[in-house]
Amino acid sequence: MISKSEIKSITQLQQKKYRDARNLFIAEGPKVIKELLAEGLQLNTFFSTEISEVTEKNHRHISPQELKKISSLKTPNSSLAVFEKPSLQKFKDSGLVVALDAVRDPGNLGTIIRLCDWFGVTQLVCSRDTTDCYNPKVIQATMGSIARVSVQYVLLADVLQNSTLPTFGAFLDGKNVYKNRMPPEGIIVLGNEANGVSEEISAIISEKISIPQFGNTTAESLNVATATAILLSEFKRAY
Amino acid sequence: MISKSEIKSITQLQQKKYRDARNLFIAEGPKVIKELLAEGLQLNTFFSTEISEVTEKNHRHISPQELKKISSLKTPNSSLAVFEKPSLQKFKDSGLVVALDAVRDPGNLGTIIRLCDWFGVTQLVCSRDTTDCYNPKVIQATMGSIARVSVQYVLLADVLQNSTLPTFGAFLDGKNVYKNRMPPEGIIVLGNEANGVSEEISAIISEKISIPQFGNTTAESLNVATATAILLSEFKRAY
Repeated sequence: MISKSEIKSITQLQQKKYRDARNLFIAEGPKVIKELLAEGLQLNTFFSTEISEVTEKNHRHISPQELKKISSLKTPNSSLAVFEKPSLQKFKDSGLVVALDAVRDPGNLGTIIRLCDWFGVTQLVCSRDTTDCYNPKVIQATMGSIARVSVQYVLLADVLQNSTLPTFGAFLDGKNVYKNRMPPEGIIVLGNEANGVSEEISAIISEKISIPQFGNTTAESLNVATATAILLSEFKRAY
Repeated sequence: MISKSEIKSITQLQQKKYRDARNLFIAEGPKVIKELLAEGLQLNTFFSTEISEVTEKNHRHISPQELKKISSLKTPNSSLAVFEKPSLQKFKDSGLVVALDAVRDPGNLGTIIRLCDWFGVTQLVCSRDTTDCYNPKVIQATMGSIARVSVQYVLLADVLQNSTLPTFGAFLDGKNVYKNRMPPEGIIVLGNEANGVSEEISAIISEKISIPQFGNTTAESLNVATATAILLSEFKRAY
């Protein structure tokens, strides 16, 4: 059983202001929940329609109808968990870092977090107007990687200006990334889905890089998550 | 003005069986519609809430409320167009080709079509159980690239078996793609989101390739669209 006030309190977590105020977020589906638990994230409450999954004190057995009321998914899975947000980490000025300037689509942000995890990038710095990484759609798209990548919301211009790392920005008119050997450390900056990297940030970036187009196409650009995939591959591949 | 029967007839096109029976599909938003027109696709009907966009005989001015009724988007754009599906093309046994084995997510398929376009891949062959490329969500994600890439639904095993091109499959335990020089021609096969390449298709593939993981992660796999991005980049980059 789940009360009306509980339903309200959980569905409120689909909104950033409530997540921020209560320092909680939602994850759905056994796979994602299991990964977050394995990474040591603090569980607040766990709800499941499967009695076999309800094994701990703070576990609750609910009906599929009840799950539907608290889920953010069109087709809810068998379980939903409320987790405490991990503590914020400070920017460490070393290694390979990905930076996002106003990326808005939750699916893109989730995919980029999953890519960082795959390529061993432990820091993702985001401008304050990048979408919130605790949005339920982001959490779903990360497939658990959210627990292994430190996502930091910062004044991006300040971080880039104060960093000793070289900064690389993805632009349509940058240097061909395939013709330049990329260093093992640096900050790779990707911009907004519609407008690319902002003027303020462009002015700070030390090197503009580009993924060239092949063949006879009028395609305007690549999706920001696929561009991130290709750039991370280029920085990490053995030459 | 738009009649009830017209609304029904247009929303039916969100389902594959009606698209197949009537050989029509929907595209939404001025940007995508403009790209499809520029590529020579045949317009059936055009609806817009902007009177300035209604300039031809088969153009119709409708209210935002009416657009909402025919749109497949949560937040409809200003326009929706019904297009005739282009004629089917036969498989040409040359060049670099991407093949999909049961990719189900429309967003992934749309992103992969956009990637093929960017990398100059003109043929995308799909197993019959891959999601339909005329699904409205696929069309939106392609950003117009659907008009420049020939998407073919085939008996994938037959095409791979009869092709003279070398076949490469994305597997978690394949050869490191960064350590092997990829040829300019071939068929790159990617599998289903949850299960990868099927057993039947695996048995036909000549070379298993893999994108290695970096760093200390327990991430299980990459998203199929980002894996396609990285593999196309590896096949196309200048060494």
